[in-house]
Amino acid sequence: MPVVTLTTDFGTSDTYIAQMKAVVLERAANCTIVDITHHIPPQNILCGAIALREAALLFPLGSVHLAVVDPGVGSSRRIIAAELAGHYFVLPDNGLLTKLLDEHSLTRAVELNRKEYWRPQLSHTFHGRDIMAPVAAYLISGGLINELGPPATNLHCLSLPTVQATQLADKTILRGEILAIDHFGNLLTNIPAPEPNAWPAQLEVTFGARRLHVSWVKTYSDAALGKLVCLVGSQGHLEFAVNCGSAQKLLQLERGQSFEVIVPHLNNF
Amino acid sequence: MPVVTLTTDFGTSDTYIAQMKAVVLERAANCTIVDITHHIPPQNILCGAIALREAALLFPLGSVHLAVVDPGVGSSRRIIAAELAGHYFVLPDNGLLTKLLDEHSLTRAVELNRKEYWRPQLSHTFHGRDIMAPVAAYLISGGLINELGPPATNLHCLSLPTVQATQLADKTILRGEILAIDHFGNLLTNIPAPEPNAWPAQLEVTFGARRLHVSWVKTYSDAALGKLVCLVGSQGHLEFAVNCGSAQKLLQLERGQSFEVIVPHLNNF
Amino acid sequence: MPVVTLTTDFGTSDTYIAQMKAVVLERAANCTIVDITHHIPPQNILCGAIALREAALLFPLGSVHLAVVDPGVGSSRRIIAAELAGHYFVLPDNGLLTKLLDEHSLTRAVELNRKEYWRPQLSHTFHGRDIMAPVAAYLISGGLINELGPPATNLHCLSLPTVQATQLADKTILRGEILAIDHFGNLLTNIPAPEPNAWPAQLEVTFGARRLHVSWVKTYSDAALGKLVCLVGSQGHLEFAVNCGSAQKLLQLERGQSFEVIVPHLNNF
Repeated sequence: MPVVTLTTDFGTSDTYIAQMKAVVLERAANCTIVDITHHIPPQNILCGAIALREAALLFPLGSVHLAVVDPGVGSSRRIIAAELAGHYFVLPDNGLLTKLLDEHSLTRAVELNRKEYWRPQLSHTFHGRDIMAPVAAYLISGGLINELGPPATNLHCLSLPTVQATQLADKTILRGEILAIDHFGNLLTNIPAPEPNAWPAQLEVTFGARRLHVSWVKTYSDAALGKLVCLVGSQGHLEFAVNCGSAQKLLQLERGQSFEVIVPHLNNF
Repeated sequence: MPVVTLTTDFGTSDTYIAQMKAVVLERAANCTIVDITHHIPPQNILCGAIALREAALLFPLGSVHLAVVDPGVGSSRRIIAAELAGHYFVLPDNGLLTKLLDEHSLTRAVELNRKEYWRPQLSHTFHGRDIMAPVAAYLISGGLINELGPPATNLHCLSLPTVQATQLADKTILRGEILAIDHFGNLLTNIPAPEPNAWPAQLEVTFGARRLHVSWVKTYSDAALGKLVCLVGSQGHLEFAVNCGSAQKLLQLERGQSFEVIVPHLNNF
Repeated sequence: MPVVTLTTDFGTSDTYIAQMKAVVLERAANCTIVDITHHIPPQNILCGAIALREAALLFPLGSVHLAVVDPGVGSSRRIIAAELAGHYFVLPDNGLLTKLLDEHSLTRAVELNRKEYWRPQLSHTFHGRDIMAPVAAYLISGGLINELGPPATNLHCLSLPTVQATQLADKTILRGEILAIDHFGNLLTNIPAPEPNAWPAQLEVTFGARRLHVSWVKTYSDAALGKLVCLVGSQGHLEFAVNCGSAQKLLQLERGQSFEVIVPHLNNF
């Protein structure tokens, strides 16, 4: 069955998610609905953009991804439907596509303004249910994206935290950021690490005033229990972790914390 | 595919939900199971009734809604199957239907007492799995509700918190209650607000000893960041919110708190 | 539709679960995916084994159960596919099957080593997504387990906490353990209680230094509000509970706590 995914900052305690699923299923009975996550920190568009980047394109081609992190609900911000890499996205035009647009070119996007595809009665505070869910149902049922409204150009993009590399005579300093902290307390960073074998066995890392020497490992269990290590995470980026423990608890860092990694003779950045 | 929904106070850490889904799928392989929520506060029947009212009837006609908030499990309280507005409900007769029965008339209800529709081995503590799940599977497969037991009359209803309106010479005082606090910290009340434009730009609100002047807005983002506002929520009721913040954190109120709104010349209550 | 279940310690805040579901659905579009739970305490294989024992075999015959509690990910620990009681399991060979193997004989097991059934690009830290999910999709689509790798023998099993019964002249002392604490604060133990009527009305229970007299009841609501009771839980084991309250909060005990129950003339242990 075709797949509709949901990514929101709604949490799972209320019935908001169920209301959206109901609207989708009421109009498209034969689809599978999958939650990407509903625990995006409230109003945090960047985290939503990262979640979509991590998971959306792994779903079958033609999937419809409904994403609602929407601090501007009810305001004049646009709601769009977009096609990218063979997938469809229905979301507010507030930067939620930023990470995907960084890597893939947009096939097309339209601004949702044709009310005949929406729920007849419209609230001012829940466009996820009243506009986006029926549009997702329409698309997953084979509806044409161009019918939904006029072309949307100049999609809103967030400025992403970038990696700064400073090449010195004998070493490279990489300045990155902790993009996310996962359920295990692993610190996920924005520093790409495509070649695990190119990294030295030991890294010098600076978090604010703290300077640490951190071992580079292939996987969590290569380290002694409780020891902080650095490795390539499952998204291909540098990650800090503690085997059977929590790097977050050990280091007491927050999402957004910047840090520096000093590596000797690393030239491929 | 036909839809079975689940609404419980079980949380999602244990395997109770999965056990119920397994029993449904083992007997009705071709249905879609959707969680309404499993985070009803333990044993809080009113919250369960509100959740069903918010979400159930948005699902396709013919859906089966299984609801288990059941402090009386194993006691002599009845378990019923009910038909209402083209939907089916399987739940203990403890008030979970109160909010829906407030707005819709009951088509029929039966008391579940025919054990041939239940799991053969019955526990005393988990009728959601052993009685209600197999009955939901039977109904979603096209089984007739009347087969499940004798008619049930006089369904148990909760006394709902009502809105009291006091008409004075120059103003109206509405006394309502905070029915729920959502994931965003929005305070959802029981005061209906069907005509957003009929409300004044500023409301005088009293929470216990605190008297506040609160702006009336159309949507969250109409307000300055961090400012308390009042608006029509997605269920059509008066709601207190903070744009990109939490009204609950700001006001430190609990579910069940009563409050008064003073509005000038409001005659349609 | 055939069923794939997921049991992990991943939590639900990150996109890890969605990534696994995406990989399954991309390769097996027509299956139903059900979460058993994602709240196994991190790296706690015993809790994972208990969850599988509680829920897996209730699903339809032929279901595929994917379980990822995998502190050894990326190390040399085997990943296996196993068939047992007409169900399939895809999981690391670290003891997750212990509870099921305690009660059912293994039909067959293979070690996953044929990379053509995996995702082409393999991470070192997320074998749930890269190896186990595609193998689950293969099995649910009717693929043969024997194709996946060579037979696996001597599966790893945990040593389970056992019940010790000491028969004295006039009484029996049972020494058991709190295996789990559920969302309601009920304390689930490892002492089987197959015959509820064989138990005395009052039990003498010792938790560490505390000796309590606990009433034996049939179901939660048989007790006064707030009173600690003992009953047969929904898995057929002795359970401590408080009617409309939390035994965990009352007793302040942790998972793994041992305790003794003294019962008069109890000969069937």
